[in-house]
Amino acid sequence: MSSSLKIAVDGMGGDFGPEVIVPGLAIALEREPRLEVLLYGDEKKIQPLLDAHPDLKKITTLCHTDIAITMDEKPSAALRRGRRGASMWMAIQAVKNGEADVVISAGNTGALMVMAKILLKSMPGLPRPAMAAIWPTTRGHSIVLDVGANIGAVAHHLVTFAVMGEAMARSVFGLKLPTVGLLNVGVEEVKGLDEVKEAARLLRESSLPIEYRGFVEGDDISRGTVDVVVTEGFTGNIALKTAEGTARQFGKFLKDALSSTWMTKLGYLFARGAFQAVRDKLDPNNNNGGVLLGLNGIVVKSHGGSDARGFSSAINLATNMVSNGLLDAIAADVEHLQQAEKQEK
Amino acid sequence: MSSSLKIAVDGMGGDFGPEVIVPGLAIALEREPRLEVLLYGDEKKIQPLLDAHPDLKKITTLCHTDIAITMDEKPSAALRRGRRGASMWMAIQAVKNGEADVVISAGNTGALMVMAKILLKSMPGLPRPAMAAIWPTTRGHSIVLDVGANIGAVAHHLVTFAVMGEAMARSVFGLKLPTVGLLNVGVEEVKGLDEVKEAARLLRESSLPIEYRGFVEGDDISRGTVDVVVTEGFTGNIALKTAEGTARQFGKFLKDALSSTWMTKLGYLFARGAFQAVRDKLDPNNNNGGVLLGLNGIVVKSHGGSDARGFSSAINLATNMVSNGLLDAIAADVEHLQQAEKQEK
Repeated sequence: MSSSLKIAVDGMGGDFGPEVIVPGLAIALEREPRLEVLLYGDEKKIQPLLDAHPDLKKITTLCHTDIAITMDEKPSAALRRGRRGASMWMAIQAVKNGEADVVISAGNTGALMVMAKILLKSMPGLPRPAMAAIWPTTRGHSIVLDVGANIGAVAHHLVTFAVMGEAMARSVFGLKLPTVGLLNVGVEEVKGLDEVKEAARLLRESSLPIEYRGFVEGDDISRGTVDVVVTEGFTGNIALKTAEGTARQFGKFLKDALSSTWMTKLGYLFARGAFQAVRDKLDPNNNNGGVLLGLNGIVVKSHGGSDARGFSSAINLATNMVSNGLLDAIAADVEHLQQAEKQEK
Repeated sequence: MSSSLKIAVDGMGGDFGPEVIVPGLAIALEREPRLEVLLYGDEKKIQPLLDAHPDLKKITTLCHTDIAITMDEKPSAALRRGRRGASMWMAIQAVKNGEADVVISAGNTGALMVMAKILLKSMPGLPRPAMAAIWPTTRGHSIVLDVGANIGAVAHHLVTFAVMGEAMARSVFGLKLPTVGLLNVGVEEVKGLDEVKEAARLLRESSLPIEYRGFVEGDDISRGTVDVVVTEGFTGNIALKTAEGTARQFGKFLKDALSSTWMTKLGYLFARGAFQAVRDKLDPNNNNGGVLLGLNGIVVKSHGGSDARGFSSAINLATNMVSNGLLDAIAADVEHLQQAEKQEK
């Protein structure tokens, strides 16, 4: 437990860049003293911030680069510039070269996925990576994947997403036997897409360390019906953004309603703590980090608009997964899956 | 404007059946005096309720049947029983036979869609019906379709959904040139599914009475970025249920937080009106009625758990669409679309 946790950090990502990243790292270090940081980015901007956090400075190696990927850069353009030594590219390379156990970036999601796929490559037996989101539910948190690493998936891909999701649930939530569901629609009798039905059959018959619970519907996600919700990236991305939009809409409606009369304004003053509690629960800052799984290395995407506290929770999520040996757990389950498939043939 | 509006109503549908349906009709009649009702269901249960609403009783023809489809019946089983004369089946038949302009049911959605497809059949040029939802947004309301009438859609189907959606937006919202967007993901550079990209090309080049705004993402729905959001039924259903789930989750978090201390409880008392306002805005009772479009007759699905007020808004939505000649508007735009396609060839 005393061995160090080496993380590679894109120091220039996110809406606020190093202004948020450096203080975020400082908070994460308080919670995880084993941290060692490789930090990539503009020395002129980062060094003064590091100077303000002496404890962090001690365990950080700052690697200078002038090139930073912008938030709205197209992945193909980002890739061309990235190869010349962007902070994001260099941070991923550190994982590839074994200098770090995990990479964290708050930068451009599309660029991060493209670079990570190229540099880290797929793990054996996992043809498609998946972006996993940690989703706040009324029961706690669930993992939903894929929320947009790929468009389209055949049944076998969905099964591999289930494998990655259950391994992550065991690692992050400490569950022995996570419950897993396949996202589907419940309206028609002959339910859902063929690939979803076929994936259901494969999961039912598999001997993975999961409790397969069958199909779940859109409203089961926030209900926390299962620990891991498996879906294809197009639908998963739309579900995630629809939920974010609905939460924002609810908040706006509430804010407008509370400022409508002096009575409601007074009520707001008294109940302020309650509103803060709800905001905290639904705040991406507290549920931070999409995790790109399926590559030879873990990639954590922090929310671009996060504050330092939010960035620190992405770091702690990352170190948590490393400490718990997530990659080995995924590899073992993939191995298990492949052997079962061979026996079936 | 003085001609009557004939509606056929499944008197047994929904979680509460005639107890909610009859008072709902009475409320709708107050708002729409041209109403004439064909009501199908169990005379013993419905007659006493009608007796309590003499105005409604005058314009209602009660047609007795013993058979009622249950909420959890599988569509295939419902269909077998339905053909023997279930209230839902008979109400749809009234539209087929020209005795009513529109049918409304709060019953089993799957059964309703199957029966409606069989009895009313597709309109010429519309190979696939679509279920349209009226979605509350921060700007007002938008229409989202398909939310689950079909699984899977090719580009041409998506274009026909756009046609039905824009006609409905003109009819229900009174818009001259509704804005239309295609639901897609924004993460990848080469965006989305092939059929969505192809549908985008077709819509860009079409001369439909719409303002095509390109791709929208999940969070654009609640933002009200466009009046009509077009998507395939699997994804649309999951988006709809995810949003419903998230709204419920937000409500639960808020309720828990507000009952946590005496301060927040006091705040709740003062701000009660505000919470009610938000609930009203997001309440399905006020945004009631999925509308099944693309058949030779309009089918309105009221929310199963609605109260009388909710059911009455489904009725008013239905009569509104009839008054504004929705079916003719759809037919005209389909005609227009087909001629444009012919010219292209």
